[in-house]
Amino acid sequence: MKLQIAIDRVPLDQAESFARKLAPYSDILEAGTSLIKDYGVQALAALKKAAPDTALLGDMKTIDEGDYEFRQGYRSGADILTVMGASSVATIEKCYRVAEQTGREMMIDLLECAPETIGRISDFSNAIYCLHTSVDKGATADPNGDILAFKKRFPSVRRIAIAGGINLGSIEKLKESSPEIVIVGSGITKAGDPALAAQNFRKAMA
Amino acid sequence: MKLQIAIDRVPLDQAESFARKLAPYSDILEAGTSLIKDYGVQALAALKKAAPDTALLGDMKTIDEGDYEFRQGYRSGADILTVMGASSVATIEKCYRVAEQTGREMMIDLLECAPETIGRISDFSNAIYCLHTSVDKGATADPNGDILAFKKRFPSVRRIAIAGGINLGSIEKLKESSPEIVIVGSGITKAGDPALAAQNFRKAMA
Repeated sequence: MKLQIAIDRVPLDQAESFARKLAPYSDILEAGTSLIKDYGVQALAALKKAAPDTALLGDMKTIDEGDYEFRQGYRSGADILTVMGASSVATIEKCYRVAEQTGREMMIDLLECAPETIGRISDFSNAIYCLHTSVDKGATADPNGDILAFKKRFPSVRRIAIAGGINLGSIEKLKESSPEIVIVGSGITKAGDPALAAQNFRKAMA
Repeated sequence: MKLQIAIDRVPLDQAESFARKLAPYSDILEAGTSLIKDYGVQALAALKKAAPDTALLGDMKTIDEGDYEFRQGYRSGADILTVMGASSVATIEKCYRVAEQTGREMMIDLLECAPETIGRISDFSNAIYCLHTSVDKGATADPNGDILAFKKRFPSVRRIAIAGGINLGSIEKLKESSPEIVIVGSGITKAGDPALAAQNFRKAMA
């Protein structure tokens, strides 16, 4: 399991500081959607500069204009970009094409996607599928159970990430379903000592 | 019918220049999603400064973090902000609360929303519901017919906007269904003479 740490809803200089401090404990650093909407894709360039040796995910949450947004995001330094599963299939196809052409990666955010929707978009073989519970709805109650159910229903999906209220207590259980990527945000960045919190997550994942 | 002109996928100085040139012919100027992702919410402040007397819509396409994103968008100068119909109901409720509290407006973008989804979110009485065909999928074939069918299915929805490949030829027919807002983007901004194109749309709408 890889640890992706999401940085969001802070001023850009604080986001850069988080990136520098948390890079040693992150497999992937994430520039959150609101950070991108606050500062634009320059937020991606800033985080990449702050932590050049760590993979950077830009949580673009693209839902239309797939070609344009993905080109802008990769050009700005992102290694992975997100597209909404709720987009039209045409949009996801455009994003995927740009990702494949540029040798980067695409994550499909399954926020609010019904199983029928997921069924229509489950064949992007290199994509990472992110099971995601809305911050506005509250945390996932059983992330491990969610992944096990997803794997059973969509056995062809190879790469899985999980996001939404993941805490230290979730990690031990997640070892059963073993997603490729575990995404943690405020559980680390809002801790009293974020670097220590990140280390604790890493230890729990080991 | 009001004319909303969308400005998108151009450098910020060109967007400001469009805002100044097109404000006289616009009821609403729109800062497009990609413009916001390129430059952040400062793009809203810049367009508001360029055309202070024209209503400004920020096409935030919020799909999570409703409270945070809407507060940021209104604070930056937007009079209207968009939330995705594909969001969780909790997200739309949060956006609506911020809109009502701050005396601003909310538009719900119905991109890729099934009728069952729309049924669940059709009771935000002051919201504008935007029928929207994805740029990536191609233009709406029959915008007038789409609105008539929508009105029949959701008679309680009072305020309707239409977006996606609207051209001069669509306008005459739209008089039948008479949406509150007609959204035009590249049909104006990519014309040889955008100000003239905007005037032609206004004439057609009269």
